[in-house]
This record gives sequence, C-alpha cells and structure tokens, in this order.
Amino acid sequence: MFLYVDCAKAYSLYHLRRCAHMDKPVFNVLSQPKLENTVLVEGLPGFGNIGKIAARMLIEFTHANLFAELYSPSFPDYVAVSKNGVCRPPKYEFYTASLGKTHFVILTGDAQPSREDVVAHYTLCDEILNLMEQYGCKFIATMAGVTTPKPAGEVYVAATSTDLGAKAVEKGAIIYGGGRIVGAAGLLLGLAKNRGWEGICLLGTTTGLKADREAAYSVFKLLLKMFGIENSLKSASEEKR
Amino acid sequence: MFLYVDCAKAYSLYHLRRCAHMDKPVFNVLSQPKLENTVLVEGLPGFGNIGKIAARMLIEFTHANLFAELYSPSFPDYVAVSKNGVCRPPKYEFYTASLGKTHFVILTGDAQPSREDVVAHYTLCDEILNLMEQYGCKFIATMAGVTTPKPAGEVYVAATSTDLGAKAVEKGAIIYGGGRIVGAAGLLLGLAKNRGWEGICLLGTTTGLKADREAAYSVFKLLLKMFGIENSLKSASEEKR
Amino acid sequence: MFLYVDCAKAYSLYHLRRCAHMDKPVFNVLSQPKLENTVLVEGLPGFGNIGKIAARMLIEFTHANLFAELYSPSFPDYVAVSKNGVCRPPKYEFYTASLGKTHFVILTGDAQPSREDVVAHYTLCDEILNLMEQYGCKFIATMAGVTTPKPAGEVYVAATSTDLGAKAVEKGAIIYGGGRIVGAAGLLLGLAKNRGWEGICLLGTTTGLKADREAAYSVFKLLLKMFGIENSLKSASEEKR
Amino acid sequence: MFLYVDCAKAYSLYHLRRCAHMDKPVFNVLSQPKLENTVLVEGLPGFGNIGKIAARMLIEFTHANLFAELYSPSFPDYVAVSKNGVCRPPKYEFYTASLGKTHFVILTGDAQPSREDVVAHYTLCDEILNLMEQYGCKFIATMAGVTTPKPAGEVYVAATSTDLGAKAVEKGAIIYGGGRIVGAAGLLLGLAKNRGWEGICLLGTTTGLKADREAAYSVFKLLLKMFGIENSLKSASEEKR
Repeated sequence: MFLYVDCAKAYSLYHLRRCAHMDKPVFNVLSQPKLENTVLVEGLPGFGNIGKIAARMLIEFTHANLFAELYSPSFPDYVAVSKNGVCRPPKYEFYTASLGKTHFVILTGDAQPSREDVVAHYTLCDEILNLMEQYGCKFIATMAGVTTPKPAGEVYVAATSTDLGAKAVEKGAIIYGGGRIVGAAGLLLGLAKNRGWEGICLLGTTTGLKADREAAYSVFKLLLKMFGIENSLKSASEEKR
Repeated sequence: MFLYVDCAKAYSLYHLRRCAHMDKPVFNVLSQPKLENTVLVEGLPGFGNIGKIAARMLIEFTHANLFAELYSPSFPDYVAVSKNGVCRPPKYEFYTASLGKTHFVILTGDAQPSREDVVAHYTLCDEILNLMEQYGCKFIATMAGVTTPKPAGEVYVAATSTDLGAKAVEKGAIIYGGGRIVGAAGLLLGLAKNRGWEGICLLGTTTGLKADREAAYSVFKLLLKMFGIENSLKSASEEKR
Repeated sequence: MFLYVDCAKAYSLYHLRRCAHMDKPVFNVLSQPKLENTVLVEGLPGFGNIGKIAARMLIEFTHANLFAELYSPSFPDYVAVSKNGVCRPPKYEFYTASLGKTHFVILTGDAQPSREDVVAHYTLCDEILNLMEQYGCKFIATMAGVTTPKPAGEVYVAATSTDLGAKAVEKGAIIYGGGRIVGAAGLLLGLAKNRGWEGICLLGTTTGLKADREAAYSVFKLLLKMFGIENSLKSASEEKR
Repeated sequence: MFLYVDCAKAYSLYHLRRCAHMDKPVFNVLSQPKLENTVLVEGLPGFGNIGKIAARMLIEFTHANLFAELYSPSFPDYVAVSKNGVCRPPKYEFYTASLGKTHFVILTGDAQPSREDVVAHYTLCDEILNLMEQYGCKFIATMAGVTTPKPAGEVYVAATSTDLGAKAVEKGAIIYGGGRIVGAAGLLLGLAKNRGWEGICLLGTTTGLKADREAAYSVFKLLLKMFGIENSLKSASEEKR
C-alpha cells in the first residue's frame, strides 16, 4: 500500500520561507527603486521584433538598471544557453531609468507565452500591472509592430482615449483605427485601461520578415517625443546608429 | 541568491480593496437593476452571427440599458481598436429592459472562448447563471444559427421540456431533434436546466457564409412571439428595416 | 472607474447552499444505495463503442437503477438534443444492481474528455474512485476495445496482478501483454491499483469502423464469467439478441 | 431538482487521511533515505532515449535502490501493460545510491508531459526540486541527447556557471554554446540555478532515429568522470557491455 505524500503538505513543512512555486509567475526583485510619476514602457518579441529592439534602445539610451525579473510557467519550456555554455530559463526583465521629470520602468524579455495559452497572457499582464501599481504607475506605453507589404517608417497609435491618440498624432503618429492588437502590447494596454490607467500603443510598420531596427528606431523616437524628451536624443542617436 | 516575491503575497499587502484578478472571469457591475420575473436572453457571435445580431435587435427595440460587463481571461488575447483609435479588451455586456410584464436581461459580446478551451466555456456559463440567479432569473432564451445549404427563414427550437418546445412550435418554430448545440447557446441552456430553470434555444437557418440579418430577424420575431409581445413589433420593425 | 465584483465573493454571499461550481466535476446524487462487496464496472465510448455497449448490456441484464450523475467542465461544450427537442449537457451515469452476492455499480456516459486535456482525464478518474471508495468499493472491471484488422471475438485482459490475469485466462481471455490502454478504461484501472484496489480491463477486438455489438457481447459474457454469474445469462441472452 | 454534492466536501468527510488528489503531482515515498552531499542525476525519455538509458546505466552500475515514485496528471493518459498483462500508470522513479563520498539520487521515468502543456513541465520540475531540497541537494546533473546527422560520440555540456562548464571540458566535454535545451533536462537545470544550485547538462550526440546506447554510454562515462569515480567503472563496464 502506498504512503502518499501530498506535495502541498511537504511544502508547508519545509519551504515556508523561500519557495518558488512555479505554478504561477514569480517575481525576483533585485532592488526596490523609489519611483514617482512612473511610466511603464513595454517592448517584447513580436513582428519584426520591433517592441523588443525599441525597448533595448530605450534601456541603452537612458542607462537603465535592471531591478526585477519575472519567471513564468507559461514561458517556453526550454533553457537558453549563452555562447559560453551558461544556461538560464526564459524571463522578463524590468529596468528603471529617469529622464527629465519622468521615471521609466522598461519591460522587455525573451519570449511571450504561447498564443494558444490565452489565460496565461491575461494573468501575466495582470501580474505586471499589479507590480507596477505598487510603484504608483498610472501610464503605460507599449511598443510593437504591424506588418505591411511596403513599410515607410510610419508609426501607428492606439490609445486609451481620443485625447491621447490626438496627442500622438501631433507628434507624427497615425491613428490605428478599426483593428486589433494582439499579445502583450495590446492586452497590457487594455487591462491597464480597465484599471483606470491611461496609455498608448505605438506600432511600427514592418514586413515582419526580419528584425527591423529601422522601424524600431521610428517607434523609439516617437516615444521620446510623447514624453517631450526628444531633444536629448539628437547627439546620442548619431553616435548609436 | 534570489529574493523571491510570491505574487499572492504582494497582492494581499497591496490590492485588498480593488483587485482585478484576471485568472478568472470578472464582472464590472455598473448599476444594480431591480428585476422581477426576469428572463435571460443570450445572443453571442457564431454561425451567421445570428445570435449577436438578434440580441442587438432586441437591445435597440427595447431601448435596453447596459448595466454590467464581464471580462474573462479565456477571451481572445487581443484588444479591439475602434475607428478613432481607442482600444479595449474583449468583453460580454449585460443590458436590461422591460416589455409588458417581462424584464429582460440581454447578454451579448465580442467573442466566445476558444473552442479548444472547453473548461472555460463551462465556467463562464456557470458564472453568468450565478449572476442571473441573484436577479431571480429562472428562464433563459438563447439564440444562435444552424448552417444549411438553402435556408428559408425557418427557426428551429430546442427546449428544457417537451411542453416548452411545443409552445415554440405553436408560434412557428420547428423542433430541432436529435442534434447538438455547440457553444454558449447550448451550454447556457443545458446548465440552466441542471439548476432547475426552464428555457429554449432558437436556431435561425443560415448558409453561415455572411452575417445573416434576415435569419437573425426571424429569430428575433419568434422570440417576441414566445413572450406575447410581437404586437409592439409591427410599426417598429418597419422603421428599422 | 470600475467597481469590480469578484465572482468568488458574489458566490459566498449568495450560493452557499446549492452551488454548481462547474470549474470541476460535480456529482448529482439521486439516491444513496446501500452497497457491500461492491464492484465498479466501467464502459464508456471508445473504439467500436465496445465499452459503452457492454455497459448498456449489463444495465439491461441486471435491471440496474440510475442513482447518480456526473457533470464535468471537461466534457464537450455542447448540449445533446433528443428527438423530441429536449436538451441536456453531456454526463456520466452511475447505475446500481445486484446479482448473486455481488453488488455492481455500472458507470457509462456520453463522452470522454478530449484526448488533449490529459489532466482532466486524471482528475475525473480520481473523482470517480473517490466516490466509489465511499461505497467500500475495492474492485474494478473496465471494458473497452482494441482495434485489429480481423477481429474474431477474442477478449484480451490486463489486470492489477498476474493472479487476476490468470483467472481471466481460465475464463477464456487472452493476456494483453506489452501494450498500452488509453483513456478511462486504462487510467481508472491504473489509478485504482495505486490505491490498493484489484481489477481487470477486458478489451474486445474490433475493426473500430462501426459500433461493434458482437465484440461488446463477448466482453459482456466474459465479465459475467469472471463473477461466476454466466449461468443466469443463458436464457436471458437468447431473448435479447 | 438536483442535490448537488460538491466533490471537495465529499473528500473532506471521507478522505482526510489518505487521499490521492490527482489534480497535481503526487509523491509515493517508499522509504526515507538519509542523504548528505547529495547530487540529483536526471535521465528521462527524449532524443535517442539517451537520458533514460544513461540513467539506467547509473542505476545498474551503482546498485541503486528505488525509494520514491512520482505520479502526475500531466503524464500521458494511458496505463502501460507489462508482458504478463499487469498494468500501471506512467510514473517517475527516484533511486538512491552511494559511490565514494557522493550520494546520488537518480531520477528516471516513463514519459515527459506533453510538449504543449508548458505549465505542467514547470510545475513538475518545481516539485522535484522541492523534494530534493528536503535532502539537502544543491547540485544537479541532467542527461539528454542532441540530434546531429553524423554523431561521433561527442558529449556537449551546458552549466550554471562558466567554471563548471570548464571543468566538464577538462573531462572531455564540448561547450554547448548559443542554443536551447528543451524539456526536463533543460528546465530542471534552469530552475535549479534560480534556486542557487549548481549543475550541468550533458548532451550526447545522436541521429535520434533509434535508442542510442552508444551515445548514452558516452554521457554516462563523462558523468562518472565529473564526480571522479570513473576508475570504478573500468572492470564493471567490460562485464556490462
């Protein structure tokens, strides 16, 4: 006859203090930044990898610091191995930076949950927004790509209000009307709106056939304009390109 | 070494009051209607979009008022963007209206959960029926489409009892015998029956190749007849078409 | 701003007494049979529908009575509609009967969970075994089909022990060696074994192309032999066929 | 009207003492080994079955003893039937052995969860690491295969640090740089690293078209070298092959 050991009980005896229950997303907070007037900027892998590249540009441009990681059981079930043979599970990263009066938290990462695991998308976005509300965040800017046969550097915008959309149009964006925005860039914005946040999604145009640095740079530039910090870009961007 | 932060704990510290746990369906109740003798009428996207169109017809005809929304992590993982660039997550909507002695709650929405996420279908229907029981609801009418090569305006009916089916036949419906009804129109009716409710499902015939307003109108008309309120339709329907 | 209503809370206020949480299997117990020395016999849809047909044969032969139903959110998301237009959700049924000194609980039903929802298969089997342990059940006989190009009425057997397998061989079965048994017929037996039960699985041979009454009858007959009640079959079976 | 019986309640009345809730992994601990300085060695089915074969080699070579089993609802939904017709559900097995100063816990099993059930992979690995931390384990060695058109006995290594990778290279391994390691061999290592463990993954090269004993033996040999116990292999291996 079996002596069953319920895992939940084994935990309660042993792992009360530090336990990585990988049945839901787990944050690894490296340091507690003091943030005010915080904006969440998101850029994850997707069409033309525009979101992720634009996020990396912002991280480098603002000399942002990694302060938290997020591991999730809905990320792909592999470990990534670096060139020198060191492995780690897929993760999201949260960086913090200040520019002018604005504090940024920049979210980027290795992968999104599988398209088929819809619930995972919702719960992951929800966790991220919960974390950000701890830092008083009420504004989100997401970045992604839309595919088009002949992209010409346009940046489309969707927003939580017509006012915000109009503001992005003033800065050079085009209204993204009557479509859908799939994945974290869309859902984070939509779920943030349901919580009373404001926000925008900037969509660079790309063929989607390659990692599209040009389109990512257009998105990155428009993002800075939205926060009135495009002037600090001029000298820096010439170096970088 | 990591300092793991269990998300559940972070919540309990911070979000006790208002927390949108998107790991299960969340109602956003805008106002508390006072309802008696309530009937739930459901029409969601499906074959020929008949259910949803018929529900919209009933909403317009009865000047129904939105009183609650339902968000679910099993809805598609995109945000819908309106023509003016404003985004929102997919949702179900609950409208309320009175006609004669009957109070209607009309349920419609953007999308159903993925066909593959069977459990999501069951739990979502269950949540809806729980909400409706709070309003004393014991009768449900669901509306959907069945595909047929040559539809001719027929409306089929399935019911929780032979009596109710017979009543629909008196009003012009045909018994839908020996088949299956897939999705919310079927499951809501079946699970309501298990709770001791009564109800019917009206199925308009359609090729399913386009949004079928004609078939939806046939279903809508038969629905009104079932509640003895078809007379109020005559003038109104001529305006509308 | 939203006024979120957590569904779980709404329940606790309203549905304490009778609540059909369809996020997990729900039993509807119609009557409480008094059982001793109970054997669980399972026959569900599958190859050649052998399990289900054999279970129906046993139900009819023993004049068994329905005493419980089981609804599950992992059953297909449709309602079945009878010929007279009355609908109901898919379900499992539990019948009880006595023959000689043996009390049978006979489990049959409309459908099994989707092959892809593996966890649903395990939890459903687990629920069923939990219910049966309440009736003191420690023996299980499952019935299913195996496909073969030229079936000739053979019945294969797998068991929880070599002794039980040998006993079935005495009665005319052939050892089913070195394979796998998929679905409820296999899992129920395997999980029952882990709880210290004994049991057998009888597998009728079929092409699997049609509902195979002949193969089901062979399985049914062998089942009766296993319990030493085949004599009562002789006259009855001639009537039935 | 239904008399619903909530399964959870039925449990609490009846199964407080010994209950196999198969909605999550369940350990069946056969004996409690006293372990110090413990190393977890994992080898499960995969490309060329290298991990599993190498684990079996280690079990035989060290005369290891089975001390625990793990059943999971995310394992395949069949029972395996042995040649003599006795069935059992799929499981993982944990063996213990000592060699020199090192205590091994060797993990092998029948199958991995479906590639599509990503969350199951994460939670299962997490359960296993939790169990092993009860035995003070802080080092893991996983074994698997990588496919290549012309394998020549090479063994690749990925590690939690460059130092450990370098140590494996000294023993004859090649750095596995810039790739991914899928399944338990990767995830166990990655999640262990997140807990502060050290560890390696040894990858034998195989065409993947057959069970590859040669490649498994190369992995097995390199594993022994990593722990400085390859000398004990010489005579034994000649017998065995």
